Amino acid sequence: MVGGRVILMKKKKSIYLAGPEVFLPNAKEILDQKSSIAKETGFIPIAPGDVKIPKCETKIMHGIAINKYDEKLMISADAIVANLTPFRGVSADTGTCFELGFMCALGRHVCAYTNDKRNYIERVSKYYNDEINYNSLGEIRTKSDGMLIEDFEMIDNLMLHGSIETRSGLLETCQAIESEMFTDLTAYRRVIERLAKSLL
Amino acid sequence: MVGGRVILMKKKKSIYLAGPEVFLPNAKEILDQKSSIAKETGFIPIAPGDVKIPKCETKIMHGIAINKYDEKLMISADAIVANLTPFRGVSADTGTCFELGFMCALGRHVCAYTNDKRNYIERVSKYYNDEINYNSLGEIRTKSDGMLIEDFEMIDNLMLHGSIETRSGLLETCQAIESEMFTDLTAYRRVIERLAKSLL
Repeated sequence: MVGGRVILMKKKKSIYLAGPEVFLPNAKEILDQKSSIAKETGFIPIAPGDVKIPKCETKIMHGIAINKYDEKLMISADAIVANLTPFRGVSADTGTCFELGFMCALGRHVCAYTNDKRNYIERVSKYYNDEINYNSLGEIRTKSDGMLIEDFEMIDNLMLHGSIETRSGLLETCQAIESEMFTDLTAYRRVIERLAKSLL
Repeated sequence: MVGGRVILMKKKKSIYLAGPEVFLPNAKEILDQKSSIAKETGFIPIAPGDVKIPKCETKIMHGIAINKYDEKLMISADAIVANLTPFRGVSADTGTCFELGFMCALGRHVCAYTNDKRNYIERVSKYYNDEINYNSLGEIRTKSDGMLIEDFEMIDNLMLHGSIETRSGLLETCQAIESEMFTDLTAYRRVIERLAKSLL
């Protein structure tokens, strides 16, 4: 009550910032930039790298402790914005994929972006040096091992792209230059701004 | 009631079989083998490739339809056995990673296996032609881009391996020969047999 009027404060929404930027040499700088953009737009950012988990007795116990902590962060968040830019290969970072699945199952708002505009099939064709065949069923298979290449005009495996579409989540793409593949925040900013319009 | 005695029938448990074998040239054969092993052990196998989803108006709509269907299958399952064998690169298939995260959040029994015994760090070091540095903080970083390589003595990203350990899930590894990387079912069979002992 302020001056006899009831003021309804809308609870701020929090976003879990998933992505491989935790591995960057300037991880803190980039995560801080992502957090600032989220804050400016009215969100509470939750970045998995923010808290340093103390080392444990063994390396594996340390990894488990980080996993437990990050799962708690996700449970506390209203939404996830997953950076699905291909990491060390043709597909998104596997930790980020796990997190996207986790948040989908929890029923949170799911959004993603990638700094590589190409569809999955283009990247995988390149991975196989374009040695691929279209067969009579309309399938695309590699010449070397006969493996099927998904052709759904999606940015990655259908469980990633499809799960976002299924929930009418937001997905933004842009084409970053090679040296800025993990630091370009154009698509990230677009997702955050669209999410603010729909959630806040 | 049979002959005046109440017979309690334990409801059979079902397992969602996640993995990249859906892309194999002999996908059906391998998935059928996996299903048979699960059945022999007393489980109901749920294989995502079992039902052919009819084509939709667009490729992307078809992908979304498969995603929706596979999510329903996961929700109906009691457990997941995820094949985390590295697929098209240094890490597990991204769709499988999504599914592992999904099932963790649903609180299902989570198990996994990989046919590549090596830890993540060994594979990633090779990916960078061993051009890596140990810095004064004890971190391992690539010489080319300064990216951190996780060193938790885990088989893949800590969210995958860690999430299984966190839940005391089962994880089996074996070293398959290259040509049988996606068809060797030694580790799979071990997981299923251990899961039967703990669940049935």
